[in-house]
Amino acid sequence: MVRIAICAPGKPLKRERADAVEALVAGRDDVSLQFHDQCFVHAGHFAGSDDVRLAALLECANDPGFDAVWFAMGGYGSNRIAARAVARMDAAARGKSYLGYSDTGFLLAALYRHGIGRVAHGPLAGDIRREGGTETIERALDWLKGGEAGLEPHLDNHPAVAFNLTTLAMLVGTELAPDLTGHVVMVEEVAEHLYAIDRLFFHLTQHLKGIAGLRLGRISDVPENDRPFGSDAEEIAEDWCARSGIPYLGRADIGHDAANKIVPFGLEARGARA
Amino acid sequence: MVRIAICAPGKPLKRERADAVEALVAGRDDVSLQFHDQCFVHAGHFAGSDDVRLAALLECANDPGFDAVWFAMGGYGSNRIAARAVARMDAAARGKSYLGYSDTGFLLAALYRHGIGRVAHGPLAGDIRREGGTETIERALDWLKGGEAGLEPHLDNHPAVAFNLTTLAMLVGTELAPDLTGHVVMVEEVAEHLYAIDRLFFHLTQHLKGIAGLRLGRISDVPENDRPFGSDAEEIAEDWCARSGIPYLGRADIGHDAANKIVPFGLEARGARA
Repeated sequence: MVRIAICAPGKPLKRERADAVEALVAGRDDVSLQFHDQCFVHAGHFAGSDDVRLAALLECANDPGFDAVWFAMGGYGSNRIAARAVARMDAAARGKSYLGYSDTGFLLAALYRHGIGRVAHGPLAGDIRREGGTETIERALDWLKGGEAGLEPHLDNHPAVAFNLTTLAMLVGTELAPDLTGHVVMVEEVAEHLYAIDRLFFHLTQHLKGIAGLRLGRISDVPENDRPFGSDAEEIAEDWCARSGIPYLGRADIGHDAANKIVPFGLEARGARA
Repeated sequence: MVRIAICAPGKPLKRERADAVEALVAGRDDVSLQFHDQCFVHAGHFAGSDDVRLAALLECANDPGFDAVWFAMGGYGSNRIAARAVARMDAAARGKSYLGYSDTGFLLAALYRHGIGRVAHGPLAGDIRREGGTETIERALDWLKGGEAGLEPHLDNHPAVAFNLTTLAMLVGTELAPDLTGHVVMVEEVAEHLYAIDRLFFHLTQHLKGIAGLRLGRISDVPENDRPFGSDAEEIAEDWCARSGIPYLGRADIGHDAANKIVPFGLEARGARA
């Protein structure tokens, strides 16, 4: 039985999505889920104030009664609490698994930087809403149980990380950013113009000198602009990799979608739970 | 007579805007304008390919027959040519004034980093299109002639710079970024959600430790979100300044508008032309 606590470091989760995930695991003896009440709090843009979100995250992470912390939703806001969160995590937090993506990448980064837990980029609890969401949720639960069936298929013998492109661009050079030297870095994006993606890749490739290479996940829901950009997302990634001397390694099976595969951070997080 | 060359390092200029600026100065003996043909080239998102835009910029900058280079439009793209441009600028380029804002901030940064010319954040030639645009253009011409009437009113005895918020966030930590230690940094933004502005300030304040302080220009055309953010742009700036130990100094009279005042980079660019 893997005991999973769920909180929302950015935006709130809709109650019916929590209900759907709970219905999926009802009566099972392989996993138990505990949605923290904070998941459903609304305060302006966020699922509660910084203090409320921070307290809920720490309650989940520092409770020895849980084996894992699973993030409910992305949105925006985990960067506002990440530094304070990792500074207050205790021994119980260090033994846990952590799973999420999108905005929660700020937290994944800070955890990995500080060597806290077993960290992976993968589905959020709120992904139940997507078509095919049941399979998505089972993929996440499998990894939280120590399974490897949902791992991103291009993982090799290099340590890897994965991030939303904007999130990683806002992370680099900050107190939350881990040292990514020698890592394969995978990025994905949703709902950004190609010119903005080009600009983000400029910034990112300037900051990521020394990585083993870059893989491009799905760049979805690109808004139509008043004129065509002139190259596509993969050409953009290849161009900036070439300019900066970073090996471009091809595509990655990650994205803001139901097929989003799991990328454990580093090598140690790939195997079964300790 | 100040001889001004105009090129477009990002997006193209509409011909009728060039015509309007030329009409404004027709017959005058204080300024002469030369719009480079590249201003009107279209290639995907840009006013010509990187090579075309780079060549035009270098022709303007390295021609001893001009006293100043004025940027026609922002848009996106000057970061793609800025490093190559400054590497190929010669003695004639070093004696010139350079004026622009928005995306051309990438170039202003690179010029200032390399000590090339007299650099300022201020109106583009294309700003003639705005209501009150005649006054805006005269403010730009006055600075290019060595005048001080259009300077941003809060300039003090610290060196200053000004940037579009997104542009500066994409600049920090890159090969284009000048050392801003001890500077007053002014930022403005247009058409970004408040959550994105909050995220940009997180990134920026992490990178700008050691500056003398931050001033907030106008944050205009903020799109309506599906929920209120919970604080306004000035509260956001103050919050991140407080978190990072950067003095928040108040507002700045800059923005994506006709009233956009002129911020010379550093102290030496404020006085009359050499």
